[in-house]
Amino acid sequence: MTPQQQLSQHTANFGRMIGSVVDAGRGILAKRRQTQQASSGELLTLCHDLLEHRGEASGLALASEICERLETLAQADMDDFFQSLALDFDVVPEHILASAKSYSEAPDFDTLATLKRAAEAPREKLFRRLNMAPGGTSLLVRLRGQLLGKLREDPSLRAVDADLKHLFISWFNQGFLELRRIDWNSPALVLERIINYEAVHAISGWDDLRSRLHSDRSCFAFFHPALPDDPLVFVEVALTQGTPEAIAPLLDQQREPVASEAADTVVFYSISNCHPGLAGVSFGNFLIKQVVAELQQTLPGLKTFVTLSPVPGFRRWLTGADLTELVSEDLAQQVCEPITGVVTAEVRDALIKLCAHYLINAKATGAAAADPVARFHLGNGARLHRLNWGADLSTKGKQQSAGIMVNYLYDLDKIEQNHDAYFDQGEISASKTVSKLL
Amino acid sequence: MTPQQQLSQHTANFGRMIGSVVDAGRGILAKRRQTQQASSGELLTLCHDLLEHRGEASGLALASEICERLETLAQADMDDFFQSLALDFDVVPEHILASAKSYSEAPDFDTLATLKRAAEAPREKLFRRLNMAPGGTSLLVRLRGQLLGKLREDPSLRAVDADLKHLFISWFNQGFLELRRIDWNSPALVLERIINYEAVHAISGWDDLRSRLHSDRSCFAFFHPALPDDPLVFVEVALTQGTPEAIAPLLDQQREPVASEAADTVVFYSISNCHPGLAGVSFGNFLIKQVVAELQQTLPGLKTFVTLSPVPGFRRWLTGADLTELVSEDLAQQVCEPITGVVTAEVRDALIKLCAHYLINAKATGAAAADPVARFHLGNGARLHRLNWGADLSTKGKQQSAGIMVNYLYDLDKIEQNHDAYFDQGEISASKTVSKLL
Amino acid sequence: MTPQQQLSQHTANFGRMIGSVVDAGRGILAKRRQTQQASSGELLTLCHDLLEHRGEASGLALASEICERLETLAQADMDDFFQSLALDFDVVPEHILASAKSYSEAPDFDTLATLKRAAEAPREKLFRRLNMAPGGTSLLVRLRGQLLGKLREDPSLRAVDADLKHLFISWFNQGFLELRRIDWNSPALVLERIINYEAVHAISGWDDLRSRLHSDRSCFAFFHPALPDDPLVFVEVALTQGTPEAIAPLLDQQREPVASEAADTVVFYSISNCHPGLAGVSFGNFLIKQVVAELQQTLPGLKTFVTLSPVPGFRRWLTGADLTELVSEDLAQQVCEPITGVVTAEVRDALIKLCAHYLINAKATGAAAADPVARFHLGNGARLHRLNWGADLSTKGKQQSAGIMVNYLYDLDKIEQNHDAYFDQGEISASKTVSKLL
Amino acid sequence: MTPQQQLSQHTANFGRMIGSVVDAGRGILAKRRQTQQASSGELLTLCHDLLEHRGEASGLALASEICERLETLAQADMDDFFQSLALDFDVVPEHILASAKSYSEAPDFDTLATLKRAAEAPREKLFRRLNMAPGGTSLLVRLRGQLLGKLREDPSLRAVDADLKHLFISWFNQGFLELRRIDWNSPALVLERIINYEAVHAISGWDDLRSRLHSDRSCFAFFHPALPDDPLVFVEVALTQGTPEAIAPLLDQQREPVASEAADTVVFYSISNCHPGLAGVSFGNFLIKQVVAELQQTLPGLKTFVTLSPVPGFRRWLTGADLTELVSEDLAQQVCEPITGVVTAEVRDALIKLCAHYLINAKATGAAAADPVARFHLGNGARLHRLNWGADLSTKGKQQSAGIMVNYLYDLDKIEQNHDAYFDQGEISASKTVSKLL
Repeated sequence: MTPQQQLSQHTANFGRMIGSVVDAGRGILAKRRQTQQASSGELLTLCHDLLEHRGEASGLALASEICERLETLAQADMDDFFQSLALDFDVVPEHILASAKSYSEAPDFDTLATLKRAAEAPREKLFRRLNMAPGGTSLLVRLRGQLLGKLREDPSLRAVDADLKHLFISWFNQGFLELRRIDWNSPALVLERIINYEAVHAISGWDDLRSRLHSDRSCFAFFHPALPDDPLVFVEVALTQGTPEAIAPLLDQQREPVASEAADTVVFYSISNCHPGLAGVSFGNFLIKQVVAELQQTLPGLKTFVTLSPVPGFRRWLTGADLTELVSEDLAQQVCEPITGVVTAEVRDALIKLCAHYLINAKATGAAAADPVARFHLGNGARLHRLNWGADLSTKGKQQSAGIMVNYLYDLDKIEQNHDAYFDQGEISASKTVSKLL
Repeated sequence: MTPQQQLSQHTANFGRMIGSVVDAGRGILAKRRQTQQASSGELLTLCHDLLEHRGEASGLALASEICERLETLAQADMDDFFQSLALDFDVVPEHILASAKSYSEAPDFDTLATLKRAAEAPREKLFRRLNMAPGGTSLLVRLRGQLLGKLREDPSLRAVDADLKHLFISWFNQGFLELRRIDWNSPALVLERIINYEAVHAISGWDDLRSRLHSDRSCFAFFHPALPDDPLVFVEVALTQGTPEAIAPLLDQQREPVASEAADTVVFYSISNCHPGLAGVSFGNFLIKQVVAELQQTLPGLKTFVTLSPVPGFRRWLTGADLTELVSEDLAQQVCEPITGVVTAEVRDALIKLCAHYLINAKATGAAAADPVARFHLGNGARLHRLNWGADLSTKGKQQSAGIMVNYLYDLDKIEQNHDAYFDQGEISASKTVSKLL
Repeated sequence: MTPQQQLSQHTANFGRMIGSVVDAGRGILAKRRQTQQASSGELLTLCHDLLEHRGEASGLALASEICERLETLAQADMDDFFQSLALDFDVVPEHILASAKSYSEAPDFDTLATLKRAAEAPREKLFRRLNMAPGGTSLLVRLRGQLLGKLREDPSLRAVDADLKHLFISWFNQGFLELRRIDWNSPALVLERIINYEAVHAISGWDDLRSRLHSDRSCFAFFHPALPDDPLVFVEVALTQGTPEAIAPLLDQQREPVASEAADTVVFYSISNCHPGLAGVSFGNFLIKQVVAELQQTLPGLKTFVTLSPVPGFRRWLTGADLTELVSEDLAQQVCEPITGVVTAEVRDALIKLCAHYLINAKATGAAAADPVARFHLGNGARLHRLNWGADLSTKGKQQSAGIMVNYLYDLDKIEQNHDAYFDQGEISASKTVSKLL
Repeated sequence: MTPQQQLSQHTANFGRMIGSVVDAGRGILAKRRQTQQASSGELLTLCHDLLEHRGEASGLALASEICERLETLAQADMDDFFQSLALDFDVVPEHILASAKSYSEAPDFDTLATLKRAAEAPREKLFRRLNMAPGGTSLLVRLRGQLLGKLREDPSLRAVDADLKHLFISWFNQGFLELRRIDWNSPALVLERIINYEAVHAISGWDDLRSRLHSDRSCFAFFHPALPDDPLVFVEVALTQGTPEAIAPLLDQQREPVASEAADTVVFYSISNCHPGLAGVSFGNFLIKQVVAELQQTLPGLKTFVTLSPVPGFRRWLTGADLTELVSEDLAQQVCEPITGVVTAEVRDALIKLCAHYLINAKATGAAAADPVARFHLGNGARLHRLNWGADLSTKGKQQSAGIMVNYLYDLDKIEQNHDAYFDQGEISASKTVSKLL
């Protein structure tokens, strides 16, 4: 075997290389640590070392070492670690003030640069260096996931969160994302995650998943190169004849698949964000539009692109709002009762009317729709197309949405116009059918 | 064909999808632009639109539109564009000062966040949005490449440069880079770039390249996912028997390849950064260490890892330094003369001694070695191993290095120690052979 | 977009191309068929057309058309089709006899070529042409799978079988096979097939599969390029400390994975052929040896390579053999009784002794071991290493093997010697422990 | 690192595995050979061993050993080897005769099987076993390439050739081929082969190749899985506006690429078979049709598919034919003179008329066109579309084709009809323009 062949053979898989550099540096670290006491302070020492260290070989080893420890950290120690991030790796107000003063005296390139450096907490650099380790990106995303759960009880962590989010917005730039189709030929590792991440209509197991990847179904996801087999966000798609009125037939594993020739509609019936730690780093809106664009181009026979979406905030709103201006007092009371069995036509009509009202007129802050799902699709430039009674009869569906589901329509020719009207004039695009309900 | 198969068939290549979204949004833009005057101001208008726009579909189209225009911009217009970036998309000092004042009054999370927002120039957001476009990352790197050439004449551009560099340090984090081996099986597109990017010992064409990828040679490069076929930095490697004393035999296309069994040494004989626009976003040091680690693991028979490097600053230093403390006045004069033909043993010995002196004692700033190549390898933790007389007899080699080349030794067990000694005590690790020259 | 980009974009997936040629030819066929009566005779007409047709465009369409029809053929029609293959596409004895006569008169290149042509049934050419269709290879393999089930009742089909097997031996040449590791990152499509194909220790579902692909387990399979996601044969592998004595701990989903450092043994505990239609086209022996070689090279710490195998023919042999020369009459009767609960030490020892005797002395034809699993491993050059009492307490294990399992040892240094001794002198390599049992 | 990770890491590249099995077996062989005399007889001994050997581990090693020796065999020894294949590994006529007799007495499955076995020379099995070795397929193809050059001088080798061809027809079944687009992103290894294999219009180097892969050009090739980076046949394609009349503008590296919107025609201007050893195992006809189908589907704007082809047999035919029935005696003499500079309009018109006559009326055997290129395209179902005067002014073009080139038109709707008419009635499909020339 020639040296070239040996090289060729042995360098096929570079994944392990990082490992080697890590190992090399780790030898050095190992000796250093033998004399150290195993303690929770040690983790911080390592972090300080990493931050200050100029040797990249052991820098990579340090980063890997810290990541491995963080992976297995006990909850209490993790809380301590978050505290340290907030306190020990924070900005120094005196430095900021001093550099702000210098800037105010002579606002130029150098004083601004100094001010910006002072205003950036050292932990941001620490995070950047941790990211060098294999699996570092994934770890940091999970770290922020945990952190978010603690913000309420400990507001001092908000600054840590803000720094991580600032990094993620840079790292997860749309230009770095890759759209992939998920199908039965995808790695089991990825499919298993799809099962676990599905947040709207739970996937009951591998058979259910397979049914959702059948000939008349599909799934698309965004991936980031640093998390190559872990989706960021995914949308489940059904090809149907006509716009669907209920979710159950879509999910039915025994259904007769729609024949290719008959399909004219694409239904987005579930969209799930996979990582709590990426909250606020949005790409869901891109996802739907890219999938619409892709399918429009490749399957020109498919004319209509709609969602089948819940109205998760409807019943909570119902019970809190003053409905008497909209319906009779009697009905106002009835519509607030839990949906159990059959309701009267009167109640049904009232609920549909009230739901249309809720979607169009109820506001969160400013002109933003109160319902989170409506806010997402309307903000994307979709149109409120149709309300479907009895569309989701699951416990959750009845509890949150009174069983109603909504079709939002994605018409690429109109989405910008809708989007602008929504954000500029707070105007919600709605079909005549829906408008007439008001 | 089932819908699934159709999907499967047509969605194989998602690259074009981005194109579709772009196209969709572009329709909208096209109409908008018909009423606009084609002018250089238009580009800025588009940039402002992109910065302020909330609709991502046309946002992507906008970004693509701007990138395409920038690709073909005339030089004068590019200068204007850089000016605009510096002026129109700059921070507003008043805002910084106001928010600095608020911070000084109540230094908390919110006031700091406001200050940081004020201190970040809008162009940074503009760059992030441009990066969404296909090829955006590559364009921005080239943009900075051009920009760097103008900093001297127009210092106001330094702020633009700083913002781009700040983004690049985040985007090109070591954790996102992929080490790949380049060989004769690599795409011609990549190989052509290797030919063009080689900066140390020019590759004369495809035959020369092929010779450098022969059984006893190799090449390794770092790639970033957003530039999948454009290397960031690469190193050329030779397998040899013993540490080489001259460059010509290494590059000889007619050489007899070293038999696999006989090879005991890995020589890094050329390392090239590919993109001027990535200046200051260093990964070369990682590259060598990862390649050492990889080869050490996969070819355990290879014991020695050395460079064969030029001393590019030697002769310039010679002519400027006071050599009389080191050599006789007579020799001091002779050694400064151009190296033309054969020199006397006396001159030769003096040049070698002076070169050792230059490498070890001449300083740039602080303790940093004056010679840029020495600075790079010593900073990486390598050791100064040997000076080779008559090692590079090319015009450039004689002109810059007096024909001398240096072997720097990479010993993974010692690099951290060397690195620390270099940075902490300004101590240069040198072999006895070299030390004795002083 | 340049034409190049368009090309690039659209030609990414060439799978569909075949479809296009098929479609083009199909138009022609469609018209032709409108005037034909839909009948089972039509399939044969198409086959005759394909055999005689000189136009490859419609030839490919014809082949695809025939394959599609065969995919959905009713059982009775399939029987008819097999009959036709046997009769209508058979050799013509007169031609053979005539060409044999010519050869006997002048045995030269041309007369031999004529004789060989006459001796090759037209169906072989038909199969080769059907193989052009997408999925053709897979269909033909399944066809032979069905055919094999009918040979007993209809011996005239033996000739059809022989022709298919002759083709498969050529097509599935070892040189065309690819060894792949199956893991949790493999496509679900492939994993699902592994679940279905496992023939020795049934996989109970996705959780069981996942457990068998855990850190201390592995799976290797041979693939053929024409069946890219359908394995031909696969072996399941466990890393253990010491040679295992029973199957249940290996399959236990709750087991504690063996630590990497502690593992010293590789156990092949299940090997399954996936396609009945490839019977007699063996590659299982290659598989084990390649996996041994691979693991030996990459995990040098693993010293021992053994199987944990059933003795499927033992109890059937027991009940038919004259055991009185080997054990007392009383025991001879007891050992033949079904294994239900606990047996006496005497019976246990007798069963083990008899099993050793069966494995070593019982013969199928000539010197070949009677037990099919023994025949496979001994024929591969493995050594009979150890018999394990109570090793498989499943119903099938007790029923066929009296609960006994055998370790066959693969020692690459000895396998050729063992193999030759087995085939040349009918000698079975056995460890001292086993030999002493006789 | 878990055992799983180790496995994962180390088994990434299975190519080397084969090597390991080979190595293992080779140890055994090495000892065996030490006692053998190094002689040309040794190669044959190895071949006999391989043929008779039952141990696949050393079988693979044997096959590899033989292949390596054959790779470096001196010419004289290769001739000996071919002789041995013809004589030592030939059928035994007595066996054929005996089994033919048995068949004549009782023509059944078993006697036929025996006859077929007797009629198959042992070398066919030898070739199948050699094919197991890495690179075996490629070696056998080259072997036949050399063999074909010797058939004329040694007709006894025809039987060896026939056996190899018989195997290749089976191995290189159209169903196993993969169509790939070759572009500037293809591996240099493949591109270098394209440069070397181009047989019609030589590629002068990498720049010429790059020009032929530019935005308005393309290249498609068939590959076989056993020769993954070695094309079998490829076709070069130009996108043009209108049907081209001459080759030089197509090959011009300085040309202005046709704009995507303007292109309406696909020109196949060069088709090359890459391996002489695959002569008679045709796939060129499939190639053009698949490329037509692919481009028709993906670039619907491209309406016309034509070739620009030489008439390589024209001038040879001219000088041998009796032209006096077609042109005046005077002209008959003039047209046979070498084409040097400008010719008279009279001579030009006569040459074009005679060329049309040659293409349509001159026959090889039966109804097959005399011109090999015409035979290929007409046999594919193409139509003779146009003759172009002064279309190829290269030395070869003038010498063989009198500078004339022909456009053959591929109209997928008509190719079967043309094909049938050509083969059934010997009718050549020609455009009116061409027909009028007669």
